[in-house]
Amino acid sequence: MAELCVHSVLVTGANRGLGLGFVQHFLRMPKPPQWIFATCRDPKGQRAQELQNLAAKHPNLVIIALEVAKPASIKVAAAKVGEHLGDSGLNLLINNAGMVNSKMIDAETFEDMTDTYTTNTTGPLLMGQAFLPLLKKAAHRSPGSGLSCSKAAIVNISSIGGSIASMFGWEMMQVTSYRCSKAALNMLSKCQSLAYKEHGILCVALHPGWVQTDLGGATGHTPPVTVDDSVQGMLKVLSSLSEKETGAFLDWEGQVIPW
Amino acid sequence: MAELCVHSVLVTGANRGLGLGFVQHFLRMPKPPQWIFATCRDPKGQRAQELQNLAAKHPNLVIIALEVAKPASIKVAAAKVGEHLGDSGLNLLINNAGMVNSKMIDAETFEDMTDTYTTNTTGPLLMGQAFLPLLKKAAHRSPGSGLSCSKAAIVNISSIGGSIASMFGWEMMQVTSYRCSKAALNMLSKCQSLAYKEHGILCVALHPGWVQTDLGGATGHTPPVTVDDSVQGMLKVLSSLSEKETGAFLDWEGQVIPW
Ligand SMILES: NC(=O)c1ccc[n+]([C@@H]2O[C@H](COP(=O)([O-])OP(=O)(O)OC[C@H]3O[C@@H](n4cnc5c(N)ncnc54)[C@H](OP(=O)(O)O)[C@@H]3O)[C@@H](O)[C@H]2O)c1
Ligand SMILES: NC(=O)c1ccc[n+]([C@@H]2O[C@H](COP(=O)([O-])OP(=O)(O)OC[C@H]3O[C@@H](n4cnc5c(N)ncnc54)[C@H](OP(=O)(O)O)[C@@H]3O)[C@@H](O)[C@H]2O)c1
Repeated sequence: MAELCVHSVLVTGANRGLGLGFVQHFLRMPKPPQWIFATCRDPKGQRAQELQNLAAKHPNLVIIALEVAKPASIKVAAAKVGEHLGDSGLNLLINNAGMVNSKMIDAETFEDMTDTYTTNTTGPLLMGQAFLPLLKKAAHRSPGSGLSCSKAAIVNISSIGGSIASMFGWEMMQVTSYRCSKAALNMLSKCQSLAYKEHGILCVALHPGWVQTDLGGATGHTPPVTVDDSVQGMLKVLSSLSEKETGAFLDWEGQVIPW
Repeated sequence: MAELCVHSVLVTGANRGLGLGFVQHFLRMPKPPQWIFATCRDPKGQRAQELQNLAAKHPNLVIIALEVAKPASIKVAAAKVGEHLGDSGLNLLINNAGMVNSKMIDAETFEDMTDTYTTNTTGPLLMGQAFLPLLKKAAHRSPGSGLSCSKAAIVNISSIGGSIASMFGWEMMQVTSYRCSKAALNMLSKCQSLAYKEHGILCVALHPGWVQTDLGGATGHTPPVTVDDSVQGMLKVLSSLSEKETGAFLDWEGQVIPW
């Protein structure tokens, strides 16, 4: 299987957890991307310290301010990324930023529902729209007619919590607002795959496993999977995808998850 | 199969379309409910004229103001319904109110996503919370241990448009914000079914068919199913449900729809 080989990649929520893990793995690749756009809400703040340290050492790493729940922030970020890339386009957009409120169903509020949906579902829709011209450019410049993540792709980091068929972990964590937002994100991925196929863009929803991050630990239990193993698994899965898998919902080991 | 036999029912979005159809069918039953709460946004306005005419003739029909996108409105409505019902509780909550924006994926806005989700998904969650005490009361007063719509149930009017596996009608109408909200509503129904089973409440998501209403006609095509046939079909399906079906996603003819 070919190693994932991209000229440019953008990761949202890149200052910690899985997002930071993606950035570290891209930097460590034998043939790293020429452009790694690591986006976070506050690039100058304390929470982006690790990203700043990495950027000081790696000229191919660019930190960009991005709050995925704010349409204006998304537009500004897309314009900045476009300036860096010039004519070459963006190969890989990883919608990773996400949030959860650990609540029982009867404690969920209007605001929980709205905030979680805005970040986890509306954000990825607007990101796809804003970066579409750059993704199209990358697809157009890449030889061959099939789809692949090395050519142009939108990867939505979803969750098995969004699987209506499995209802994984319900007894442990109801997180209804999160589950609803991720089921909707799975639908969005399917919609994007159907709409953007003609532009040469592959779209997929990935479950990263239950991973040792702030979000993964929000239940109070220790998750079984390390960030390193999860990211390595997801990159391997991404490198293997073709047009057959566009619109699919897969886990970090490549298994199909039921809707 | 037994006819659906409820002491009390509440229908949201009851001033037109399927909601009005439900009210008409309940009124026409051989043994009509003692309480039919028909809710709409503006009970005194022109848009509620048909409901007003019906209420003038049927003392068991009570019109209640309810905007499902506003938590405060839901609370006031639940209190009013509680006053009418006293100790008897509510048997059947039909979350029917819904909206769609007929747009292509790249025309969907932040506001489209938020508004559609608030009405189609957050509304039904908050309705379930607010009416839970009344539903529990009805379940408690009803003899027998199983689940049924005659005892206590939440019925969420979903759509095959929310089926990620089928992507029904994509070529004709993308309606991504609607599809995402209904996929999320299906997840919500599953969550409600798991959370409320122990209280004796059945929860189900129903697809009404493609029906001749304002919403059904929003594509410019004429839908094949009449309001009468759809409502009659759904009521027959509801009358047949038991604990085996709680959490299911069914159409107006009783067929299971894939998630
Ligand atoms: N960990 C797991 O077990 C697990 C399982 C299934 C799915 N996932 C998914 O994996 C993705 C990454 O999660 P994680 O485990 O790495 O969580 P995490 O460690 O809590 O990190 C979440 C990241 O998202 C960012 N973020 C949140 N809201 C944002 C917003 N509105 N705008 C921009 N950035 C925002 C955070 O930024 P700040 O630092 O500024 O808050 C942070 O960088 C999420 O989509 C999550 O749902 C994780
Ligand atoms: N017709 C179809 O082919 C079809 C197919 C699949 C699913 N459905 C679902 O069936 C349900 C009923 O749709 P319909 O076809 O009867 O549509 P409709 O004729 O357009 O009626 C929609 C109803 O919902 C109400 N409503 C909308 N937003 C509301 C809000 N925020 N608060 C309170 N009420 C609100 C409307 O009230 P106003 O009059 O005040 O606007 C109206 O009473 C919807 O959930 C829809 O998604 C319909």
